[in-house]
Amino acid sequence: MNKPVHAPQNQFPVAGGELQIGGMPLSRLAERVGATPFYAYDRALVKARMAQLRAALPAGLKLHYSIKANPMPAMVQLMAGLADGLDVASGGELSTALDTGFDPADISFAGPGKSMAEIRRAIAAGVCINAESAAEVERIAHQAKELGLAPRVVLRVNPDFELKASGMRMGGGAKPFGIDAERVPEVVAQLRRHGIEPLGLHIFAGSQSLKAEAVVEAHASGFALALRLAEDCAFLPRMLNLGAGFGIPYFPGEAALDLAPVAAGLAAWLPRVRERLGDVRVSLESGRYLVGEAGVYVARVLERKESRGQVFLVTDGGLHHHLAASGNFGQVIRKNYPVAIGNRMDAQARESVTVVGPLCTPLDMLAERMELPQADSGDLVVVFQSGAYGLSASPTAFLGHPAPAEVLV
Amino acid sequence: MNKPVHAPQNQFPVAGGELQIGGMPLSRLAERVGATPFYAYDRALVKARMAQLRAALPAGLKLHYSIKANPMPAMVQLMAGLADGLDVASGGELSTALDTGFDPADISFAGPGKSMAEIRRAIAAGVCINAESAAEVERIAHQAKELGLAPRVVLRVNPDFELKASGMRMGGGAKPFGIDAERVPEVVAQLRRHGIEPLGLHIFAGSQSLKAEAVVEAHASGFALALRLAEDCAFLPRMLNLGAGFGIPYFPGEAALDLAPVAAGLAAWLPRVRERLGDVRVSLESGRYLVGEAGVYVARVLERKESRGQVFLVTDGGLHHHLAASGNFGQVIRKNYPVAIGNRMDAQARESVTVVGPLCTPLDMLAERMELPQADSGDLVVVFQSGAYGLSASPTAFLGHPAPAEVLV
Repeated sequence: MNKPVHAPQNQFPVAGGELQIGGMPLSRLAERVGATPFYAYDRALVKARMAQLRAALPAGLKLHYSIKANPMPAMVQLMAGLADGLDVASGGELSTALDTGFDPADISFAGPGKSMAEIRRAIAAGVCINAESAAEVERIAHQAKELGLAPRVVLRVNPDFELKASGMRMGGGAKPFGIDAERVPEVVAQLRRHGIEPLGLHIFAGSQSLKAEAVVEAHASGFALALRLAEDCAFLPRMLNLGAGFGIPYFPGEAALDLAPVAAGLAAWLPRVRERLGDVRVSLESGRYLVGEAGVYVARVLERKESRGQVFLVTDGGLHHHLAASGNFGQVIRKNYPVAIGNRMDAQARESVTVVGPLCTPLDMLAERMELPQADSGDLVVVFQSGAYGLSASPTAFLGHPAPAEVLV
Repeated sequence: MNKPVHAPQNQFPVAGGELQIGGMPLSRLAERVGATPFYAYDRALVKARMAQLRAALPAGLKLHYSIKANPMPAMVQLMAGLADGLDVASGGELSTALDTGFDPADISFAGPGKSMAEIRRAIAAGVCINAESAAEVERIAHQAKELGLAPRVVLRVNPDFELKASGMRMGGGAKPFGIDAERVPEVVAQLRRHGIEPLGLHIFAGSQSLKAEAVVEAHASGFALALRLAEDCAFLPRMLNLGAGFGIPYFPGEAALDLAPVAAGLAAWLPRVRERLGDVRVSLESGRYLVGEAGVYVARVLERKESRGQVFLVTDGGLHHHLAASGNFGQVIRKNYPVAIGNRMDAQARESVTVVGPLCTPLDMLAERMELPQADSGDLVVVFQSGAYGLSASPTAFLGHPAPAEVLV
């Protein structure tokens, strides 16, 4: 049996032995940024991914960007021009979304622990609030009354199914997210007692799935649940957000999600849904899938060091900037992200190396015993698949090193 | 067999049903801070821990504080008045240490990926540099020549043994940390060619051990290695930093480290070491052990939520503030930190609850199915053992929530 390998990382062209990011050789980009380490996101790749998704999926389906995947303001601004909706998960993200000038009616705010201040801001801004519980509905109604404004309320449902074969299961069973499906009718009644008609449903079963059949099944279950709830509550949802669940391949042996069956599944359901619910706005929400593969994390080798037969590349970057690549975020067994020496893409001589950072902890590792071109101080280590849940999901203050730069090129 | 339980958390007194932090009831402290969540560190407990350690360990042994455990400036200032040395791991920590007014000769800077700028600053400041490799020695010598200053160089050794039964193994085998023990003689010769006499040795085998015999063995191996290296290099170390390795109990079934055998082991070795090396400054370096148990993380319950028979306490705090307590930092299988409802310490009625944060991810969990007093919105969840590697090791920007406050009381 062959050893599992990483999915090919050919989204960035190579020229003159260098990876080209945003159309610029990596070493020149590093000079443009002015310091390592840095994150770089390729604008053209983000646009291409969105275009590819629109081409693959049925027409009329709305595509939302989930800001939490990458909240860099320039990225959110870019996505504001590409996506049909922006989804936020905190007051901070709400500010970033509003600052783009995006229509508040197409911004939605989900999250199980919204503060009173966040709820108040969301109502004042006119964005949709994805209510997560009966208690939150009371808080929304109370704040809306105080403000004298009609709130836009979508019900987030904890479904009675889960996204199988996914990195993150967020629905099914007992969960802190959303209103248990079986309790939605009473919450709809509760809203109506406050004179508020719910705008729609948010049904999100999980994320980071690479198995098309699991995604298709989750979407089908979501549609079926939405129709059942509409029936049970005598309620006509105007909006239906199904999440998406689309994953990207990070680790050896993983392969890209096949969109064709997913598109076919959606195409089969959409007419049935429209027949029953009329002109409902059906959306998928994605973060990682839209931006994850467009980004790299770049660190410079400070020293090539041998210790007892093993080669270490000690870099100026590490877990404090990219926790997920170090294996400390959501992984059980540490696996390597795809990594390259970005200025030696044509090199023939390869060796097994371990790439570490400057921190005094054995957790600070970006690649463990990986076959890479021979590298030395000054070379640029590239961690692929770093456009989502990279910088913002990392403990940048750990050990007091400077934060990395971020560029959208 | 009984289910394993957490070590008792009785370092904070309880009065009127409330945990007392810094001599103040928790609910009043929350008002003093003005917002939740927050970290609070108890000044008296830090002092008591240092005094207890000094009383237990042989006289003449120096005790250093490793700033990376908790770099809050007020904490470092407190430790500057208690410890015999401050150990830093970055230029940022170096600044914090120097700002306390501490004698630079008793500050040491370790770390496998020091930048040229950091090395230059360390020489200019007059602190000890724990050199991690032959290449780093060259960089130090070069910068010292440029600055016209004599550098203070200690050799960090990657020992030929490890700290058994520890949370973090940092020595033994192939490592990015320090100079392999067998190559120390050539590095000493290299330094001497630059006219630099090494000041001493830093031998650090690992951290977070709760097994006295493992710590005793690591110290003994460290002393023996130091004597052997002194012999091999015809070199009289003036400083010997053995690390410490002292852990604190975090998880069910763990018990506090027994200091008596550790002290006995050190007492047996010190006279032998002094006989051979004369008036060498022997130090232990500790971070977590000095401050970890003196700190709590406090979050407020926003909502008590039931989902399909399970009770969730949704709080305003979570993994973005306390990554380690969420099980995402250095743990393989998630286990609960000790947790309490700090304003209901006398409550009788208990229930099994899961404590989560406001983030839209199932990783955001502070306690899973734990028996706690019945709590509701407004109550204060306390995570114990949070004085070290808490805030600074957490991804505070994740999902755009505000950072928590930190107080030393």
